[in-house]
Amino acid sequence: MSTAKKRKTVLDPWGTTIVEDYNRLYEEFGIQPFKSLLSEMPNPGMYMRRGVIFGHRDFELVLNSMKSREKFAVMSGIKPTGEFHLGTLMTAREIIYFQQQGATAFYCIADIEAYEDNKIPFEKSEKIAVGNVADLLALGFDPERGCIYRQYKEQRVRDLAVLFGRGVTLATMKAIYGERNIGLYLSALVQAGDILMPQLKDFDGPKPTVVPVGVDQDAHLRLTRDLASKFRRKFNFISPSSTYHKIMKGLDGSPKMAKRSPMSYFTLHEKPESIAKKISYAFTGGRPTVEEQRKLGGVPEICPVYEICMYHFVEDDDDIVRVYHDCKSGKLLCGEHKAQTTEIVLNFVREHQLKRRKFIDKAREILQVN
Amino acid sequence: MSTAKKRKTVLDPWGTTIVEDYNRLYEEFGIQPFKSLLSEMPNPGMYMRRGVIFGHRDFELVLNSMKSREKFAVMSGIKPTGEFHLGTLMTAREIIYFQQQGATAFYCIADIEAYEDNKIPFEKSEKIAVGNVADLLALGFDPERGCIYRQYKEQRVRDLAVLFGRGVTLATMKAIYGERNIGLYLSALVQAGDILMPQLKDFDGPKPTVVPVGVDQDAHLRLTRDLASKFRRKFNFISPSSTYHKIMKGLDGSPKMAKRSPMSYFTLHEKPESIAKKISYAFTGGRPTVEEQRKLGGVPEICPVYEICMYHFVEDDDDIVRVYHDCKSGKLLCGEHKAQTTEIVLNFVREHQLKRRKFIDKAREILQVN
Repeated sequence: MSTAKKRKTVLDPWGTTIVEDYNRLYEEFGIQPFKSLLSEMPNPGMYMRRGVIFGHRDFELVLNSMKSREKFAVMSGIKPTGEFHLGTLMTAREIIYFQQQGATAFYCIADIEAYEDNKIPFEKSEKIAVGNVADLLALGFDPERGCIYRQYKEQRVRDLAVLFGRGVTLATMKAIYGERNIGLYLSALVQAGDILMPQLKDFDGPKPTVVPVGVDQDAHLRLTRDLASKFRRKFNFISPSSTYHKIMKGLDGSPKMAKRSPMSYFTLHEKPESIAKKISYAFTGGRPTVEEQRKLGGVPEICPVYEICMYHFVEDDDDIVRVYHDCKSGKLLCGEHKAQTTEIVLNFVREHQLKRRKFIDKAREILQVN
Repeated sequence: MSTAKKRKTVLDPWGTTIVEDYNRLYEEFGIQPFKSLLSEMPNPGMYMRRGVIFGHRDFELVLNSMKSREKFAVMSGIKPTGEFHLGTLMTAREIIYFQQQGATAFYCIADIEAYEDNKIPFEKSEKIAVGNVADLLALGFDPERGCIYRQYKEQRVRDLAVLFGRGVTLATMKAIYGERNIGLYLSALVQAGDILMPQLKDFDGPKPTVVPVGVDQDAHLRLTRDLASKFRRKFNFISPSSTYHKIMKGLDGSPKMAKRSPMSYFTLHEKPESIAKKISYAFTGGRPTVEEQRKLGGVPEICPVYEICMYHFVEDDDDIVRVYHDCKSGKLLCGEHKAQTTEIVLNFVREHQLKRRKFIDKAREILQVN
C-alpha cells in the first residue's frame, strides 16, 4: 500500500487506468471537485448525488446555462466494440440526464477509435453500433432532440480533425498519449472533432458543452480544450466542460471491469444465468465467517456488489443508504445481498431487453445501416 | 567532373557532379537506375530520353503493362500553393505522357498537404487549384480518361488514410519524415491514399500504377509501398511504381528553385518582362570574359539557362544537342543563348496562357468550385 501510494496516477484512455486516490487527481491534473457545485444544481442526477461523478472541468459554464435556461450541449459516446456493459450504461444515462435538463445531446459512435485501437473493421462496428444505439434509445434518449452519428460517416467531425492536425505537435501527442500508432493520434484528433462539432454553425454555433466521461478519458479533454483555444479565432469555440465519473471495480475484485476478465463484468445482453453466476461468485466486503460479519459488519466501501447497486441498480437514495447501514451493522449478509441484487439486476435486464428490441429498426434508420 | 564515359552519352551531357550525387541514391535508397529500361520503352518521353528521369522503383511492372497493352494507371498531383512553375509543369507533362501511352490518369490536388504544411486554408487553395487544373488541361490532360480531384473532398482517399493509420507506428513516421506536426503525418497517410486509390474497385481494381515525382518525394513512396503490402490482403494492392526526375537548379545559381528566392524561378503566369528579366540575370556556365569563352567554351553542365532549355523548352533532341556543343565549343555565348531562350520561353508562355483561359470554366466544373 505504501508503495502504491507513491505510484503516479496515469490517465490513459487506451490503456488501464487504476485510480488509487481520486483526491490526487485534483492536484495532479487540475480536475475540480464536483461536490462544491452540487448544491447549486437545479436537479442533480443520481451519479452526482452519490459522488460517482466526483470531478469536472469548467462545469460552471454549463451550470449557468442550465440555471438561466440558455442553450448548451452534452456530448459523449461509445466505442462500438461489443454490447452495452455497466460503463457504457453510465455514460448513456449521463447523456440522457443532461438531455432531459435541456441540452442538445450528441452521441458519437467512435468507430474510428474502435478501428485504430481495437482493430474492429467498419463493417463489423456498424453492426455492433445498431445494438448500442437501440440500447441508448431504450434507456430514454430522445433522437428528436439529439444527434447520433458514426465518426467514419460524419464528414464534419473528420474535417475538424484535418483542421486540428496542424495545431498539434508530436511532442504534445506524446506527452498526452505516449508513443502510439499514427492511427491512434488520428483518432484523438477525430475525438476532438466530436467534442467541438456541437459548436459548429450547423448546430446553432458556440455554446457550453459538457462531456460526461470516465476519468480515464481526460486526456481527450485536455487535448480538445487546447485545440478549442487554438482555433477560437476561426470558430469562436467555447472551451468544452467535462464531468468525470469514477471507474467501477471488477466484480471479481480486480481493480477495473475489463473484457479480458469475463468474471469482472457483465453486459446487458448476457444470459440471466450468466449474470446471476457472476454476481454469486463476486468478491465482496464480507468477513471470513458469518459470526465475524454479524459482529464486525461488512465493508461496503470495497464491495463491488454494493458498488453496482449504488452506481446503477438501486435508484432510491433512502434504499441505498439502508443497504449501506445494514451491511455496516452486520444485519445484511453477503449471500442475502447478492440474492437481492441478482433479482434487481435481472429484472432490469429483462425489461431493458424487451424495450430494446423495439428500437432496433429505429437504430438502423438513424445509423443508415441495412 | 566525371569521365569520358559519361560524355559519350549524347542525350545525357549534363550528368557530371550532380549525377554522382544521384548515383548515391541508388545505393542509399534502393532507387533503380532508369537508363537500363530506356531501350525497352515503346515510346520514351523527352524526360526519359534526356535522363531527367533518372531513377525508378518497380517500373518494370508498368513497362510490362505498356508493352502488352494491359491496364495501368499514372498518379501524381500538385500542392495548390500558387501558380504553375517549372517543377509542377514537369509533373503535369509526365502524367500527360503516361495518359497518352494508355494509362488511366489521376491528378490530385493536395489541399490537405497545402493546409498542414503551408497553412493555406481550403477556401484559398480551392481558388488556386482552379488555375492549376486549367494549366493541366491546357497542357493536354484529357479529363475524360482521368480523374482530377481534391484530397479534402475525395472521401475514398480520406477513408484509406483512416485505414492506413493503424499500419504506421510513430517510429516509422519519425524515421521517414522526422519530428513533425500530427497534421503532416496525417497528410502523409492521405498521400498514401492518393497513390493507392487508383487500385480500388471503383476504378477497376488492382493495377500497376506509376507515380512520377521529383526525387524529393520518395519518402511518400516508401511509406505507401509499405502500406500497400500491409493492406494487400484486404485490397489486393499491387505495390506502386515510381519514376524520379531530377530537381532543377535555381536560375540564380542556387541549388534548387524555391519560392523564397524569387529570382531562382518563374511561374507560367508572371509578366513576360519579369520572366525576361530573370533569364537575363540568370547565373550561367559562361567564362569571365568573351575571349576566354571563345577559347575554352562554356560549361552547360552547371548552367541553369541550358537546364531549362533541356528540361522544358527545346523539344527537338537534335536542337538541344546542338546548343550543348555550340556552348562547349565557344561558338554560342551566354548573352545570345539567353536571348534565344527568352524568346522560346515567352512564346510558350503566351501561347499557354491563351489556351489556359479557355479551360478555366472546365476546371471549375471538374473541381466543383463556384
